Amino acid sequence: MSSKSGKRRQADLRDSESGADSGQDVIWGINSVREALAQNPRSISEILVQRGKAGPKIQEIVDRARQHKIRLRFVEPNRFGVPSQCRHQGVVARQAPVTLLTLDDILDKAEARKGQSPIRLLLLDSIQDPRNLGAILRSALAAGFTSVIMTRERSAPLTGTVAKTSAGAVSYLDICQVVNLADTIKVLKKRGFWVFGAVADRNGVSVYEADFSPPLCLVIGGEGKGIRPLVQKQCDHLITIPIQGHFDSLNASVAASVIMFEIVRQQGLIG
Amino acid sequence: MSSKSGKRRQADLRDSESGADSGQDVIWGINSVREALAQNPRSISEILVQRGKAGPKIQEIVDRARQHKIRLRFVEPNRFGVPSQCRHQGVVARQAPVTLLTLDDILDKAEARKGQSPIRLLLLDSIQDPRNLGAILRSALAAGFTSVIMTRERSAPLTGTVAKTSAGAVSYLDICQVVNLADTIKVLKKRGFWVFGAVADRNGVSVYEADFSPPLCLVIGGEGKGIRPLVQKQCDHLITIPIQGHFDSLNASVAASVIMFEIVRQQGLIG
Repeated sequence: MSSKSGKRRQADLRDSESGADSGQDVIWGINSVREALAQNPRSISEILVQRGKAGPKIQEIVDRARQHKIRLRFVEPNRFGVPSQCRHQGVVARQAPVTLLTLDDILDKAEARKGQSPIRLLLLDSIQDPRNLGAILRSALAAGFTSVIMTRERSAPLTGTVAKTSAGAVSYLDICQVVNLADTIKVLKKRGFWVFGAVADRNGVSVYEADFSPPLCLVIGGEGKGIRPLVQKQCDHLITIPIQGHFDSLNASVAASVIMFEIVRQQGLIG
Repeated sequence: MSSKSGKRRQADLRDSESGADSGQDVIWGINSVREALAQNPRSISEILVQRGKAGPKIQEIVDRARQHKIRLRFVEPNRFGVPSQCRHQGVVARQAPVTLLTLDDILDKAEARKGQSPIRLLLLDSIQDPRNLGAILRSALAAGFTSVIMTRERSAPLTGTVAKTSAGAVSYLDICQVVNLADTIKVLKKRGFWVFGAVADRNGVSVYEADFSPPLCLVIGGEGKGIRPLVQKQCDHLITIPIQGHFDSLNASVAASVIMFEIVRQQGLIG
């Protein structure tokens, strides 16, 4: 493999703060990134542009990224996660380990599966740790939540770390990134979904007492802050895992998994 | 704080392959380590000795570490996880963020709680990822598994990363490290515990069909390999989480958490 501009390579770099990580395809150089944007924009999870870099070609890339709603970040070149000898020309695109679907795709697929199996969607509000995201996706597939809708801006990008932590589950899941999760929930409710938001506080209904009739969406919030208020407001029910003592805290991927498996248990599909 | 030999400091170093990590107390220098070994050997999770280093004082430290069954590693000095200006004299001790109990302590505490609440022990066989270990400990406390017995040699050491990932749960748990988990299980069975080993294959009984009568021990195996055969052989029952499709894989901390919460749900203590 060459390290010249325009080449694509499997990055084998250590995680850096830029989020570039092992196992992920990275494309660098103006022409290569333009080509990828033209040919398969949905395969791109993020475009990094060197801070202060300008020019008509860079601007065109920025415009196209915005048009395709691709996450865009302006960073110092040492955050690109490519070796310095690569002629990146101020722009790097990171490819998702998965081709993303649109919300319509997800809904069409759910419609097609109607009557065959209970429809269950997983909605992720701002899961920012790639390992948590990977673990959640791994559990989602194992629990039969095969469609996942996630926030585009505040989520960990779908990188090689996510793919690896998911134990390959990303390849089998239908994943969609949305700009506004509250609006997405409104659409889902109009389509007949019941929306359950997982909360850590004891105001939520116990997951062991909730009525998890399909079709349903389970909303899981990010580490620390949980589901954002505007998203929470759109949920039909707030649910919680009753815990022992005063230790009011579960890891996001653990909470998601415990609830997903409890839903499946109640729906009588396993056991 | 001084960086001279003999001083103790809160390490604020990045994770290195040595496992030294943020938030952990590190002690360096021959006299300081000897003193810590004499005063509170149970507070020490690991002693690192510089490869090739010899002498009667180093030998005394090695002997005492072995006597107290403290994990001992011979490494290059750049693996010490202390700044190079520290006069470590070839020996560094890492302190556990928790004081470890003995198996007898754990059993005495269980005995004392008899009749008050169902006795549940968590046994960890070779959990090697510190973040998985932390997440498991966090869930254990939340699910009311307040006593944890773990293998000493093959487990991630109880470092700051573990403490941090556990969200502080390590401070509230009774933790014991044992050399031989199979022998420990024999002791537990003699004391009337039912021992359930979690397996990923479908030969295990579904966790939704198992009879989780207390007092019980739940054994969770390490990432990848699961419970080792000799440990598995000592389990009374092998249990499994039924999963969807062909994706036969759950993260160790997720599997542990789903099973712990299912046990508590069945025992009727939450919900």
